[in-house]
Amino acid sequence: MRKPVIGVMGGSTATRAVRDEAYRLGSLIAERGWILLNGGRNKGVMEASSAGAKEAGGLVIGVLPDKTDAMASQHLDIAIMTGLNDARNFINVLSSDVIIACPGALGTMSEIVLALKNKKHVILLGYELGVEFNKYVRSGQLSTARTPQEAVNEAAALLAECQN
Amino acid sequence: MRKPVIGVMGGSTATRAVRDEAYRLGSLIAERGWILLNGGRNKGVMEASSAGAKEAGGLVIGVLPDKTDAMASQHLDIAIMTGLNDARNFINVLSSDVIIACPGALGTMSEIVLALKNKKHVILLGYELGVEFNKYVRSGQLSTARTPQEAVNEAAALLAECQN
Amino acid sequence: MRKPVIGVMGGSTATRAVRDEAYRLGSLIAERGWILLNGGRNKGVMEASSAGAKEAGGLVIGVLPDKTDAMASQHLDIAIMTGLNDARNFINVLSSDVIIACPGALGTMSEIVLALKNKKHVILLGYELGVEFNKYVRSGQLSTARTPQEAVNEAAALLAECQN
Amino acid sequence: MRKPVIGVMGGSTATRAVRDEAYRLGSLIAERGWILLNGGRNKGVMEASSAGAKEAGGLVIGVLPDKTDAMASQHLDIAIMTGLNDARNFINVLSSDVIIACPGALGTMSEIVLALKNKKHVILLGYELGVEFNKYVRSGQLSTARTPQEAVNEAAALLAECQN
Repeated sequence: MRKPVIGVMGGSTATRAVRDEAYRLGSLIAERGWILLNGGRNKGVMEASSAGAKEAGGLVIGVLPDKTDAMASQHLDIAIMTGLNDARNFINVLSSDVIIACPGALGTMSEIVLALKNKKHVILLGYELGVEFNKYVRSGQLSTARTPQEAVNEAAALLAECQN
Repeated sequence: MRKPVIGVMGGSTATRAVRDEAYRLGSLIAERGWILLNGGRNKGVMEASSAGAKEAGGLVIGVLPDKTDAMASQHLDIAIMTGLNDARNFINVLSSDVIIACPGALGTMSEIVLALKNKKHVILLGYELGVEFNKYVRSGQLSTARTPQEAVNEAAALLAECQN
Repeated sequence: MRKPVIGVMGGSTATRAVRDEAYRLGSLIAERGWILLNGGRNKGVMEASSAGAKEAGGLVIGVLPDKTDAMASQHLDIAIMTGLNDARNFINVLSSDVIIACPGALGTMSEIVLALKNKKHVILLGYELGVEFNKYVRSGQLSTARTPQEAVNEAAALLAECQN
Repeated sequence: MRKPVIGVMGGSTATRAVRDEAYRLGSLIAERGWILLNGGRNKGVMEASSAGAKEAGGLVIGVLPDKTDAMASQHLDIAIMTGLNDARNFINVLSSDVIIACPGALGTMSEIVLALKNKKHVILLGYELGVEFNKYVRSGQLSTARTPQEAVNEAAALLAECQN
């Protein structure tokens, strides 16, 4: 039985408040005994969530767009170097059991969209999506959390469902 | 000097009205002497735009998610078999000079988003995006056309700009 | 019915003699009415085969490892920008009906190997493979040509077989 | 500081003797405190090396060609689902600090070749390469081990070199 893998997506540039939330989210994921997967870079939501998980004793996987780890976070346990640029976003999505999306820009949006397309559940934590996504809220594939704690509780409920 | 490549994106399932528009769009692209690039499958907007371009004497490139051409449109001149599943959407975007998005679902949305991220201009033809995309309309990277003719006129204007 | 696509692989650095052969090979492919597919760069076997095909009135597709066409040959009709680095070699192989391998290094070798793995026929034109490949020669999946003319004759025979 | 990642490549079909060696290799990698990375499937060298590492308390990453884990080994700690088919071989190579190649067929060969191309060191454990690879032996990028223990000793020496 593998441990659950939680994909945390979000901007490579992020405000201090967003980075604080991402750090907290990483901590809570680690405390649950889950694995954190993100885009691996040493910036924004990637760096902050990695730091949070690592400092709480968790395991952190970064799936990098790059051929090398020159821009990787120092907090990764494992760096997957893809050399695929934005095509790596597809891997992030497929490799996560549940995805939590923090505020980000088009890269994050592409991951949310590919996640929904590939039947993954996405939890929005401060990421605002337009009304055209309401149907995924109604179907239960997309949900919203107000705090990292709520996001992790929601992920726990989803993981429990999958196991039954 | 290569001929312009116009990427036409859109749903693999599409209403008759949308398929008619995609067919017309393909024709107009061919009449301009441009190359049509799409996702290559024998369904929906892909099939209809390929048929339109091919019957008007154009050149059609399909970039397939598959390892083989078993699901390719009969109207392709060239089938690029990627075997990459949804990761091929990134290639569609990078390989197009301008992208025209017809109505579609999450796959089309992922292409629009990756196109904007990679500094490509996107013309929406009947594809509705939420207000969160308004900033790309304001910056001029995203525009809207009401008819295939308008979309092609807009593409011509954009291509002329790039050459100056 | 799509025209046959012949993949020409080979080194990005190549001697004058190899480039002359690649140029001649491109010409002969074009004269047959076939489409030339290669790695798209403006160097070595890619550049020479593209020039040969283009000057003989053929159609040339370059599948680039890059996100842009900054390093593309001037002789391409269509540039497929993948942004996938060496992972694009897999696309070259899948998208070719027959592969002709000119002298090259590890990149070319990876394409030969992936081609054989994916049941494609490979014709070696001056590319020397070790005895460990003899079983593919015996099975008929790998053959050897001494001149561009021989390689193209062999390709014609293989294409004729596929259609029967 | 991340732990070293050792990529173990080899056939998806393998004799009992090869599987026994791969199992032993996995064990030794785990005992060193290194991370094992392989292709993730539940067959051949992948399955055997994963079982060996896992049962010795190691951490096992499988980078799958598939979109799902339906064919994944039960012994993985982390399954990276790529959906990229053979293009995932490039990721295996880039993500490994050192590669050990057990007997395999064309897939394994493609990984050896891409590894050499991307400046990775490859240790052959029972994998026979032709004389055309001798120059990589001479340059020190390719070496040969007779037993799993020798392969792991060689990997240790290479990792020590990199850190100095």
